[in-house]
Amino acid sequence: MSGEAVSFDPAQLPWNDDGLLPVIAQQQDTGEVLMLAWMNAEALAETLKTGRVCYWSRSRQRLWRKGESSGQTQSLCALYLDCDQDAVLLQVEQTGPACHTGRRSCFYRQVVHDQVRVVTDPLIAPGLLYARHADDNTRH
Amino acid sequence: MSGEAVSFDPAQLPWNDDGLLPVIAQQQDTGEVLMLAWMNAEALAETLKTGRVCYWSRSRQRLWRKGESSGQTQSLCALYLDCDQDAVLLQVEQTGPACHTGRRSCFYRQVVHDQVRVVTDPLIAPGLLYARHADDNTRH
Repeated sequence: MSGEAVSFDPAQLPWNDDGLLPVIAQQQDTGEVLMLAWMNAEALAETLKTGRVCYWSRSRQRLWRKGESSGQTQSLCALYLDCDQDAVLLQVEQTGPACHTGRRSCFYRQVVHDQVRVVTDPLIAPGLLYARHADDNTRH
Repeated sequence: MSGEAVSFDPAQLPWNDDGLLPVIAQQQDTGEVLMLAWMNAEALAETLKTGRVCYWSRSRQRLWRKGESSGQTQSLCALYLDCDQDAVLLQVEQTGPACHTGRRSCFYRQVVHDQVRVVTDPLIAPGLLYARHADDNTRH
């Protein structure tokens, strides 16, 4: 295993027209895929620097430090780029549910042929998830 | 576990401006994340119908039946949508390497702080991977 370390220049990544790349978050020990979100260069730099995962929220158009509203943070264990360098894989330690619905993973709807079904239950009701941090955060 | 099956209407998914959604492929037993690619509605429908994974190739602007050039196909085991229904997770059975470089996974570059390093070796040289099917396929 395998190559020499070389300098990493995020400016060379093929950011899309919105300056973003898709990012997969995977629980580091179980391998469960938790979510897909997006990063801009600033979010990527902050994540690498702090070890706490930061995304770009497309709906809010601002940096989104995962867990800032819910307390359900992601600690970075390892970060990978794919062969085209236009997708990112994070291996993380996820506190509690990754999904705003209170589920561990956002991928809780299974499609079989022409039907779709919710296949996992919340770990915690979303109302409780966000209420915990209502004193010092605004729910998004 | 958890909900009733309801009718699945792909036309209701929030396809992006190019008519695509990002798709994660994960090896079904080991949990390894193999690649991130894209599907349009036709690729999704074909994948659900045939059980053989079909993407939309953004570089070639056409349907891409995974393995059509390399022989390294993906059989669909399960397909999930996320909470916003704008990302897809496939659990697949991957034949050999998923990556065109001959590596099992496309995520073979690890970034640590300001350095990047190739951390996995090819299972097979790309030349051999594509030469196997040179008689009946054009390499892309």
